[in-house]
Formats: sequence, structure tokens, C-alpha cells
Amino acid sequence: MRNFSFWPGIINAYKQYMPVDEKTEIITLQEGNTPLIFAEKISNIWDIELYLKYDGANPTGSFKDRGMTLAVTKAVQNGDKAIICASTGNTSASAAAYGSRAGLKTAVIIPEGKIALGKLSQALMHGAIVIPIKGNFDVALEITRKIADNYPITLVNSLNPYRIEGQKSAAFEVCDQLGGKSPDILAIPVGNAGNITAYWKGFKEYFKDHKTDKLPKMIGFEAEGSAAIVKNQVIKEPETVATAIRIGNPVNWEKAVEAAKESGGFINFVTDEEILNTYKELASLEGVFAEPASAASVAGVKKMLKLDKIKKGSKIVAVLTGHGLKDPDTAISVIPRVNPVEPEIGTILKMIGL
Amino acid sequence: MRNFSFWPGIINAYKQYMPVDEKTEIITLQEGNTPLIFAEKISNIWDIELYLKYDGANPTGSFKDRGMTLAVTKAVQNGDKAIICASTGNTSASAAAYGSRAGLKTAVIIPEGKIALGKLSQALMHGAIVIPIKGNFDVALEITRKIADNYPITLVNSLNPYRIEGQKSAAFEVCDQLGGKSPDILAIPVGNAGNITAYWKGFKEYFKDHKTDKLPKMIGFEAEGSAAIVKNQVIKEPETVATAIRIGNPVNWEKAVEAAKESGGFINFVTDEEILNTYKELASLEGVFAEPASAASVAGVKKMLKLDKIKKGSKIVAVLTGHGLKDPDTAISVIPRVNPVEPEIGTILKMIGL
Repeated sequence: MRNFSFWPGIINAYKQYMPVDEKTEIITLQEGNTPLIFAEKISNIWDIELYLKYDGANPTGSFKDRGMTLAVTKAVQNGDKAIICASTGNTSASAAAYGSRAGLKTAVIIPEGKIALGKLSQALMHGAIVIPIKGNFDVALEITRKIADNYPITLVNSLNPYRIEGQKSAAFEVCDQLGGKSPDILAIPVGNAGNITAYWKGFKEYFKDHKTDKLPKMIGFEAEGSAAIVKNQVIKEPETVATAIRIGNPVNWEKAVEAAKESGGFINFVTDEEILNTYKELASLEGVFAEPASAASVAGVKKMLKLDKIKKGSKIVAVLTGHGLKDPDTAISVIPRVNPVEPEIGTILKMIGL
Repeated sequence: MRNFSFWPGIINAYKQYMPVDEKTEIITLQEGNTPLIFAEKISNIWDIELYLKYDGANPTGSFKDRGMTLAVTKAVQNGDKAIICASTGNTSASAAAYGSRAGLKTAVIIPEGKIALGKLSQALMHGAIVIPIKGNFDVALEITRKIADNYPITLVNSLNPYRIEGQKSAAFEVCDQLGGKSPDILAIPVGNAGNITAYWKGFKEYFKDHKTDKLPKMIGFEAEGSAAIVKNQVIKEPETVATAIRIGNPVNWEKAVEAAKESGGFINFVTDEEILNTYKELASLEGVFAEPASAASVAGVKKMLKLDKIKKGSKIVAVLTGHGLKDPDTAISVIPRVNPVEPEIGTILKMIGL
């Protein structure tokens, strides 16, 4: 258990588990320490004990900040003057925020034609140099890697090993927040599969140090339209409303399979319909607004309960990886339209249902 | 100073200062405990010691959660089955989130014609009953108050006194985060003027209990187009890019004036141009993306430094009230456009400036 008068960010909070020393200059936005929220209504309906690890409350609105604080800290330690990534989403936002904080140049390479300014607005606000290249995502990633391999620029894509080291802090927090206990099950969305890998690493490190009583089963959920691991094949053109996990060839594929197997868990998938239904339920029942990809974890729990793959009464932590504000378009597409009425008390009371 | 193994939300964290007892059922999303981020680059340029209190990291993305946890907790304690507010912005999002969590119905009354679904999407996602009425904001507020006065529905607009009691927790956090010290100056955006009132109350309560060494000067900043307090007149049609403080007749007008006077501070205003410049600087220099209204506090500090109204070397905390993701349209309006290039290493390196 840890005690602070204030939260110093995940590297300082878990320094003994991080590859830094007393002299390392730490680049932080005080990420981590996110809410672990008991989902009372869903728990009662489904007869489980469900907690939501709400990583949308991180500074840039997603769990990526946990890994980025360490990746950028190490880039600075390494003397690099720039960081680079191929990403149109949460990674680019986080990279740009920590890059700007560190005084590094941040380059974001994206495929042309996929330029939705909304998705890129955070990276651009944080001063990133966003470079759309003529070619698809594979071309973008390839040239990004080549540049990082040959110039003093740190690659901060999922391939950067410090990302996972930072992200494992979420597992420590979950155990600390449960009073030094591990949940029975950790449910998590799977895209590049780095986060399930990171959580498993964190749980194992805490267990080894006797900071928890046991290890959880890891259950991961891909979106059906990008379920490469479940279908055991690369998906050339992944499609899902859950854009943050729309990945057809996960970087951490093998590690994720290993984490699931080693823990006695599994990786499965959920449909877009299941994701969107859960997305709405989390916001309207529990007061927690997460981006669609986040809902895959809870939708997966629901599916597995129906299939009797999860025991009633289980203590489950479901990871919500990003804030709902990250994807306003999907929110607008699912909410009801509203029509003006006369300002009469009777009319309004009737609409409220009183 | 407080110590927790995890953060329990602002009511539990500061229970002795909150109007609850051991039996009160607390409705929380573990709001509060938001980052206090040292703005190193701006501090160096301006020769001050500037910290950013980043309340955009609250669950619904704004400081409103601090007051709403208490307002909704008291509504439940009071036996009400519904809450109501007139709001198109952060208040409605927060009310709907806490209302859904508490199992209360949440009604949001808005004037017709001002229905930007983006602004309302959070409230609607959280299951609020959004009712546009034929009439302007004054009509909406009037009927909202009438309903709350005559039916078992709690008004959670700024008129609700528990809002300020909850919001004062931010002042406690600032002092705790500074190691039991008060800053020399607290700079804050002023809209309805509830937050400056709340901070001042918090600072005074902590000082009285010897938890800090002194009281800060309170300096508040309205937007020029809605500077009712500074101009000492109600603004009938307030206009500013900083929508969260676009208020022409602040509810807590007198209390805010009193807080500024009593503390030896003042209330002033900043232009939209000053707000937008600072909005960009915070994101690109310090890695902190806040909504435009938030930038009024830091823009105000800059203006006052130029006018010699703030001493060099002062320790200043500037409040950033909401997350930048709250207002994607303004972000998109200020970021540069990007054009595709060939995927050539030389071209990309030149664009990065290496």
C-alpha cells in the first residue's frame, strides 16, 4: 500500500518498479491514480461484484498517458530531441502532450485520407508536427520505424518497451484500491494487446512482492470486426465502431495470448452492437462515460456471464481505457433527438415522469 | 495534510468540512484530487512560480463534479427523486452523471435554438431528460426554479448552496499539494462567480484551522464580452469564445466581489484574443489542454504582469476549470491544416526540423 499527501504521477508513485533512479528527470502530468468505481446497479443485475477502472480520467483522457510518461522520460534521458509515432488516435494525443511538456519535438505520421481533424485536434493543440503521408497505415508505420532506427528520434508507438512498463502501474493501482487484494478477474479491451500484457506484468510483480494475495484471471475482448487473435489471423481491413481497438495485427499478440493462458483466462470478442449497448448502459446506469472501445471489457463480461464462463459472485475489475469525450461523434449518433415544448410546468413534469 | 491509500472523492476526503455525517450515503465518482502541475516554461518566461490546478481531470471533465457530488448526495438524503437544472454546458453533464449514479431522474431545461448536440451529448448519454422550451435562458431558469420550489425536485444550478461547499475542496487540495502552504495568488476564471467564492471559503476554513500559513490574494478574470462584474452592469447578450464563462448576470456576483476585496485581490477581464493565445500556449508549452474559459485565469496573470499588478517571483496557482476535449470545435478552429507529402525520409526530417 502507498500513501501520499498528493499524487506525484505513476513513475514516482511506483518508483521501485520503474526503470529510473533518483537522478532521472521525470516528465509527468500527474497521470494515473484514476478512479476505481463500484458499478452497483450492474453488479446487482448481473449478480457479480464489478468495479470500473476509469482511465479516461488521465490528463489526455486515456490510459496511454501511463506509458507515455515513461517513454518520454527515457527519451529525454537518452538525449533525443524528438519523438515520433504513427497514430491517428489516443497515442498521438498523449505523445504530443508529454513531448511538449518535455520540450521535445513530436512528429505524428499518419496515412493520408484518414485525416479527421477531431481525432487529431489534441495532438495539434499540443504542438505536434502532424505529417500525413501518401500511403496506407503500414507505409506510415514503416517509415516511422526507419526514421526512429536511424536518427536520434525515439519511437513512442506500442513497440516502445517502456510503454508497457508504465502501463503496468494500473494493475498496482487496482490492487491498492482494493485494499491490497487482487480481483478474481480482470476484464480488458484488446487492440494492440499492450495493455493486457502490461496489467498481467503488473499483477505478477505485485504478487511476487507479496503485495497481493493472488493473481487474477485475465480476460480480454477484441471487437468482432478486428478479432485477429480470436480468429487467429491478421485482419487486413479491420472495422469496428470501437476505433481505439480497430487493429488487425496486434503488436503484442503473443504476449497477450500468453497472459490469458498463464492466468487461466481467455481472449474473446464482442460485437459492435454489444459494445454500443454497454457504452450507453455505463453512462446511464453508473454515471461513467467512456469511449466505445472501453465498453468492450464490460460487454465481454456480460457475454461470458451468459455463456457461464464467469462464476456468479466473482469480483471483477473492468478496464475503461478512454474518456467518452474522446469520441463525440459516436455519442451524438446514439443519443435521442429532442424537440422544443411550451414552458408549462405541467408539460415538463409529465416529461420528467413525475 | 491528508493521507489515503486511494482517493475516496472529495466528500470523504474532507469530511470534517462537509455537511454530512457518518450515516450519509455519499454519491461519488471519486472526483477531485486533480493534478497541480508546475508550469515550468511559462514560469521561466514570466519570472513567476506558476502552477496549474487542472480540474479537467475530473470524471465529467470539469470542476462542476466537486459541487455536484455534494448537491446530489443532499438531494438523495432529502428523499427527492429527481434533480433539475437549466444549463447547456458543464453543469448539465455533471448533474446527469451524478443523477444517473444516484438513480435519480435528471431534467435539463434549455432554451430552444441553442441546441448544439455536442454540448449536450454528455447529459444525454448519462440519461438526462433534456427539455428545450420555447423561450430564452431567463424563461428556462425561471420555470426551472418554479418547479424546484414547488415539487420534490432538487435544483442543482449554481443557486444550490451545496455546490459551493463541494467546490471549496479544490482550495484544500491546492494547499495540501503545496505541502500545507497557500499560494501568494489564486487566479481563476469568473463566470457565475461561484468558484472564486468557493475557493475563498476553502482557503479561509483551512487557514482558520492552521492547515496553511496564510491566505492568498484572489484574482478573478471575466471574459471581456461578459464582464458584468468589472463593468458593474448586467450584460444582456454576453458574447465570448469562452462559453463556460459566458454569463451576463453572475449568481454569486456580490460574494465574488467580497472575496476579491477581502483577500486584497481584484476582478478584471481578458479579451477573447488573450484567451485563445493562452489556450494554445498551455497546450503547446506545458502539455495541458484545457477548455477556452479555463485559459482566462492564465491570460489574466499575463495581463496583470504587464500592468505591474503582480510582483515578479510570486507563487501563483491558476485554476483550469475544464478539459479541452469539452470544446472540440474551438480546438479545430485554431489548429493548423495539414497537407499530405510523399513518404520520404528526407522530406519528413525536414518537416520535423532535424
